[in-house]
Amino acid sequence: MIKLHNVNPKLLEAHYAVRGKIVIRAQELEAQGKKIIYCNIGNPQALKQKPLTFVRQMLCLLEYPALLGLPEAAELFPADVIARAKMILEKNPSGTGAYTQSAGIPFIRKAIADFIRERDGIPANADRIALTGGASRAVQSALTMLTNSPNDGYMVPIPQYPLYSATIALYGAKQVNYYLDEENNWQLNERELAKSIEAAKKNGVNPVAIVVINPGNPTGAVLSGENIEMIVRFAKKHALSILADEVYQENVYGGRQFHSFAKALHELGEKDVTLFSFHSVSKGFLGECGHRGGYLEARNMPDDVYAELIKLQSIGLCSNVVGQLVTYLMVSSPKKGDASYEFYVKERDAILRSLKEKAELLGRGLNEIKGMSVDIPQGAMYAFVKFELPHPKGVDPGKMTAQARIKYEAARDSEYCLRLLEETGICVVPGSGFGQKPGTLHFRTTFLPPKDEIKALVEKMKKFHAAYAEKLKDS
Amino acid sequence: MIKLHNVNPKLLEAHYAVRGKIVIRAQELEAQGKKIIYCNIGNPQALKQKPLTFVRQMLCLLEYPALLGLPEAAELFPADVIARAKMILEKNPSGTGAYTQSAGIPFIRKAIADFIRERDGIPANADRIALTGGASRAVQSALTMLTNSPNDGYMVPIPQYPLYSATIALYGAKQVNYYLDEENNWQLNERELAKSIEAAKKNGVNPVAIVVINPGNPTGAVLSGENIEMIVRFAKKHALSILADEVYQENVYGGRQFHSFAKALHELGEKDVTLFSFHSVSKGFLGECGHRGGYLEARNMPDDVYAELIKLQSIGLCSNVVGQLVTYLMVSSPKKGDASYEFYVKERDAILRSLKEKAELLGRGLNEIKGMSVDIPQGAMYAFVKFELPHPKGVDPGKMTAQARIKYEAARDSEYCLRLLEETGICVVPGSGFGQKPGTLHFRTTFLPPKDEIKALVEKMKKFHAAYAEKLKDS
Repeated sequence: MIKLHNVNPKLLEAHYAVRGKIVIRAQELEAQGKKIIYCNIGNPQALKQKPLTFVRQMLCLLEYPALLGLPEAAELFPADVIARAKMILEKNPSGTGAYTQSAGIPFIRKAIADFIRERDGIPANADRIALTGGASRAVQSALTMLTNSPNDGYMVPIPQYPLYSATIALYGAKQVNYYLDEENNWQLNERELAKSIEAAKKNGVNPVAIVVINPGNPTGAVLSGENIEMIVRFAKKHALSILADEVYQENVYGGRQFHSFAKALHELGEKDVTLFSFHSVSKGFLGECGHRGGYLEARNMPDDVYAELIKLQSIGLCSNVVGQLVTYLMVSSPKKGDASYEFYVKERDAILRSLKEKAELLGRGLNEIKGMSVDIPQGAMYAFVKFELPHPKGVDPGKMTAQARIKYEAARDSEYCLRLLEETGICVVPGSGFGQKPGTLHFRTTFLPPKDEIKALVEKMKKFHAAYAEKLKDS
Repeated sequence: MIKLHNVNPKLLEAHYAVRGKIVIRAQELEAQGKKIIYCNIGNPQALKQKPLTFVRQMLCLLEYPALLGLPEAAELFPADVIARAKMILEKNPSGTGAYTQSAGIPFIRKAIADFIRERDGIPANADRIALTGGASRAVQSALTMLTNSPNDGYMVPIPQYPLYSATIALYGAKQVNYYLDEENNWQLNERELAKSIEAAKKNGVNPVAIVVINPGNPTGAVLSGENIEMIVRFAKKHALSILADEVYQENVYGGRQFHSFAKALHELGEKDVTLFSFHSVSKGFLGECGHRGGYLEARNMPDDVYAELIKLQSIGLCSNVVGQLVTYLMVSSPKKGDASYEFYVKERDAILRSLKEKAELLGRGLNEIKGMSVDIPQGAMYAFVKFELPHPKGVDPGKMTAQARIKYEAARDSEYCLRLLEETGICVVPGSGFGQKPGTLHFRTTFLPPKDEIKALVEKMKKFHAAYAEKLKDS
């Protein structure tokens, strides 16, 4: 029988904090009847965000096209939904039940190219777009493709989304950390990037790509246009590909606009830096996580390399068709004049307004807790909250080795989040799951729960934090 | 910019024939207006098989539950469909749009355990079942988990489904071929297995698992109960895990019954051989390929190892929810007395009857072509057709080295299939894409096209084959 020591050691090493031990414990508590507030993951519809009516009406007809032939259809569905469903069935007559081309349904790839053209005012090529089962799968494809040897390294922000650290560990490559600048709204810092890559090279690592998450996960920050151009120049100088995780591009709440890497490449006239950018139906205002839809766009990639990417896709046949259709509906929403348009806009705006309000409500609330501080999230669905705890008597982390200190701090934030869960039912993820500067403690929480729950959550955290810190001081 | 020589060499080495060059050429020809008959892949709904009404009515309501509240619902949908949709929404209130637990929705895993219990009359554990994005993803998870070192080897049938060869190449493990016995309805042969594993060990390979595809792809064969028990004993003797690809378990047309490995393990009282078995919504009579649903069941696997498998799943978050729901509907079909039952049975039986008729029609037709022979498929959706071609003047493969001969034969069957495509529009896959005994030529074709198209296809193949063989003789 297979035993743990027979299991791929790279898998054993991989950690995925947002679904790690604390979440497994939360599920156990829930099964015992405890009410859990799942703030560990950006899963809006699990926290009562309603799906867009337009999207679901379309899917309803596409799953069961027989409805289209019934006289009731005209009463049950808006005219543009019916017309659009018919159009899709004409362009993809085998429907939701057949495998598609490996890269995805051709008309959907064209619609994505149109979307990028319109969003950024730049050219876009449907033959460099591949539909994927959510952005996670797309990121894994890019990492599979770029990893040539165990010395190949990926520059990854700290804090980062653990998809990157887990996949890099699983594929046996090297993770090259660079710190985001918490003092400067979590922007990237050129000197820090240079320091990080030099240290990696000294250690024999061959950096092949840089990962950038914008808007940020877990930081909730939005990168400035200048910051993005700096990154492109940095990538060019060091012959790095760029992996641009842009799944939160619609989740921008502050004054700052979203700038895509595709646009920056175009505006800089950059023809040499290979870019993979990722988008998803799971985030934005759709929040259709369960449908596992998304796409990858590649730029500055030769035909023969793109063919290898598609071959890789083909080994899993194709991404799920409903996810592909939701991606189409994301990039091709109702237009002014369509029967669905006004209600669509109303639902969309209500979701985005509510997210903005909740980001502020949570951010301000947590900042009022003594020993906690956080940037009011400008984007995405998360706050990465810094918190302070007294050290138990006789413990002086200043005297620890670097490694011992990381271990000590990871134990501290994990224990904190576990106690928070046990005592309040609030499930957040320890900062050590994303990475953090030595000497700091954080946790990541979403701001997705309904408004009244957020207020209660802040209250509970306040009480918990004070009591926990007090107890620690006395220990 | 990334160039081909920067791409992961393991990806460059991986080949996936069923979506390879010939299929890409077919898509080009189709874009130019030529009618293509896609017999390269088991994609029933692309070849006009209708989805089951019950399945699609359920999905329609689950995507757009607002319909359930309308007075029209009772007229548009059978009572059991409405009741079932309500039950599912109660058990999974966040619906199709939310991430689920990494292993999949709990009530669906329980329903799968019930299905296995009922199918085989054996115990089954929902906590050893994980929902996956089709069987391909499940197979890849098992291979990821079991591959410890580049010397680890997988025993793979020849001919095989190229998911296995491609994934093994991609993960940098070793493929250990064993030949299926074409003279004995493509069963496995114990001596051949022993020969194969001994040769591998001599070459420094460490075999960790054996892959068995039953019913067979591309062979269309169904393994006997004795054959399966022999394989279990062989696996035990050599401390191998078993990967049982059982996605065609409902596609059995001849007299022979499907025997699951789970049942064989149970009946032999075997508590030591680890089994991964795979099932999918893509095949059977559902043919819901586009929905990418399936599951993996593990047996004889300790808790800590299973936890690693679920961690691996969690790095991709979860499989798509609609695919999970289709899997549920596959394992929990309407019961006698349900309003949907009779129509469901009628549709199901019509599909299975038609597949059986088409298997015979195609098999008998091809056997009448001079220079072709094939076992009438007893299962799955494929015929693996043996064909003979004269050698060009002056060419004597008997004088070639083994490697040169394999290359020569691969070029021959590929060229044959390419010409067949160009001249007739029929798209089949060369035998070299699956593997074949030296000195033989094959192609794999599905028997999925509508009956009248199959007749025309046989006629076209007959003409093509005679002309092609004639020309080759003269060359």
